[in-house]
Amino acid sequence: MAHRGEFDQIAALFAPLTRGAPGALSLRDDAAVLDVPPGQQVVVTTDAIVAGVHYLPDDPPDLVARKLMRVNLSDLAAMGAEPLGLFATCAFPVDCSDAWVEAFARGLGEDVDAFMVPILGGDTVATPGPAVFSLTALGTVPVGQALRRSGAAAGDLLAVTGTLGDGAFGLRAARGELDGVLDPASVAWLADRYRLPQPRLALGVALRGIASAAMDISDGLLQDLGHLCAASGVGADLDAHLLPVSPAVTALAGRDGWLEGVAGGGDDYELLVAVAPQHRDALLAAGRAAGVAVTIIGRCGAGAGVRLRTAEGAVIEGLSQGFRHF
Amino acid sequence: MAHRGEFDQIAALFAPLTRGAPGALSLRDDAAVLDVPPGQQVVVTTDAIVAGVHYLPDDPPDLVARKLMRVNLSDLAAMGAEPLGLFATCAFPVDCSDAWVEAFARGLGEDVDAFMVPILGGDTVATPGPAVFSLTALGTVPVGQALRRSGAAAGDLLAVTGTLGDGAFGLRAARGELDGVLDPASVAWLADRYRLPQPRLALGVALRGIASAAMDISDGLLQDLGHLCAASGVGADLDAHLLPVSPAVTALAGRDGWLEGVAGGGDDYELLVAVAPQHRDALLAAGRAAGVAVTIIGRCGAGAGVRLRTAEGAVIEGLSQGFRHF
Repeated sequence: MAHRGEFDQIAALFAPLTRGAPGALSLRDDAAVLDVPPGQQVVVTTDAIVAGVHYLPDDPPDLVARKLMRVNLSDLAAMGAEPLGLFATCAFPVDCSDAWVEAFARGLGEDVDAFMVPILGGDTVATPGPAVFSLTALGTVPVGQALRRSGAAAGDLLAVTGTLGDGAFGLRAARGELDGVLDPASVAWLADRYRLPQPRLALGVALRGIASAAMDISDGLLQDLGHLCAASGVGADLDAHLLPVSPAVTALAGRDGWLEGVAGGGDDYELLVAVAPQHRDALLAAGRAAGVAVTIIGRCGAGAGVRLRTAEGAVIEGLSQGFRHF
Repeated sequence: MAHRGEFDQIAALFAPLTRGAPGALSLRDDAAVLDVPPGQQVVVTTDAIVAGVHYLPDDPPDLVARKLMRVNLSDLAAMGAEPLGLFATCAFPVDCSDAWVEAFARGLGEDVDAFMVPILGGDTVATPGPAVFSLTALGTVPVGQALRRSGAAAGDLLAVTGTLGDGAFGLRAARGELDGVLDPASVAWLADRYRLPQPRLALGVALRGIASAAMDISDGLLQDLGHLCAASGVGADLDAHLLPVSPAVTALAGRDGWLEGVAGGGDDYELLVAVAPQHRDALLAAGRAAGVAVTIIGRCGAGAGVRLRTAEGAVIEGLSQGFRHF
């Protein structure tokens, strides 16, 4: 935590985000010191975002901060971990206003409280370029119970949480590209889904011992499922008509690129889960208990690769699979 | 670990830096999973650097990477922690050459081996601005034995490792400003001290139970000692003539700003340690065992603030205390 140019700013804005967690040492020492409960492993994930690349330059700063937090918490959820603490590094542009920084810190604080996870450390620097933020999230999981990508087996059912494509169409909504196409409430709802993902932390914890593999969907279902399949050494067949979509995205059905947005769009941050058939009921019960929709969308099979099929079983060809940054 | 645009690059350059550590999950899962030995706490520190702010744009990329690592390891050393693993986020400029990225990764690899600490995760993104890197270092320390800034008491001796001012004058050497002022070997030695700090990890571990307070000197002795004094609720008197300086810096003595560079310059990354008088011999023995020079430079007293004194005891006034980025 060297190179802190602005001790006062950190003291005023960031130290309160520790919410008194003793391990943060009030952000005044060389490092944080954390207790790990016996029998637990530490889960660590980190993400970086760049203004104009990962978020729109005029996005509200509090929502930028909250999305950064939620993207990392989604990774913890995908491992079945409970959050322990966050470390944030902020490269603010030299001409960044105090109001922007304050709103950014306020956004962090909102989700610090919403997810009951403190900021335990960080670093704040100035950059002559666009803002760059990174967050490292630490969580805990009982030894050996982390949800991995590599445990899926042929015959496992595949399921996702929530609805798909809201991230991709939500970006268009946030850009104003759906004004007049959808009603204003749907546009606002979609933009909110893009800006504020919902990390499925409670469900992730509940899936310990149930899921054979799990990950979060950040780069689009098809690409991310491809990674899960590769890690597990299986293939997968998905039923396109089973993919869960929101009313707002349903209202866009039939447009060019619609299925690409649903099955291949990024920024959904829902969980993708594989379970053995005998755990089907436990999976659905865990979803109900967590208040999260869980939809079975296909199954793992022999071979390799992901096949998206029509209701009649025909393989849908030619879909773009990659997540495209704007 | 979402938003990875370049899976191939990560696989080729960064996955080997895990050196096979199982907790890294080959950088292919949503997060890393780490074992923490029983009876240990986890120490976490994070730092960010920006091209043109924290390093010179034409600095060799391998040295940029190694300095980033060493700055964080120095924070672990200052806590008495042993390194467990590193998480790196890299925002490379969109026009960054493959050769630059490869050299950066090679530098990380050199110090991964030198300090036997693996890379366990990270994120790589592209930025239209200057490069921004952040590193989060995790370490372990026996419960309750972390070296804090806040434990110094009036009467404690103050000591530093190595030599002071090499960072400040090393920056000038790296910029070519000392060419013709010092012999080429001294210029090269100083520039190397600026670019490659030496984290005092073994000594930090040895100081558990000996030091009453410790921190690393990143922003200059006077400013950092001020933080230690404030955290501990003590004042400090330093003997200017006892400050340890290298032969290269000694050769610059008498020039304008010399004492400011030694006592107030940044980037030294030496340890500042407070010990009760009865631990004096143990401190010096720990230095000898670790092969690190340890010099007693003053003592803590009542009151507040840091006073730098001449050999005759007069307080030296008017020194600039702040670290100045270039």
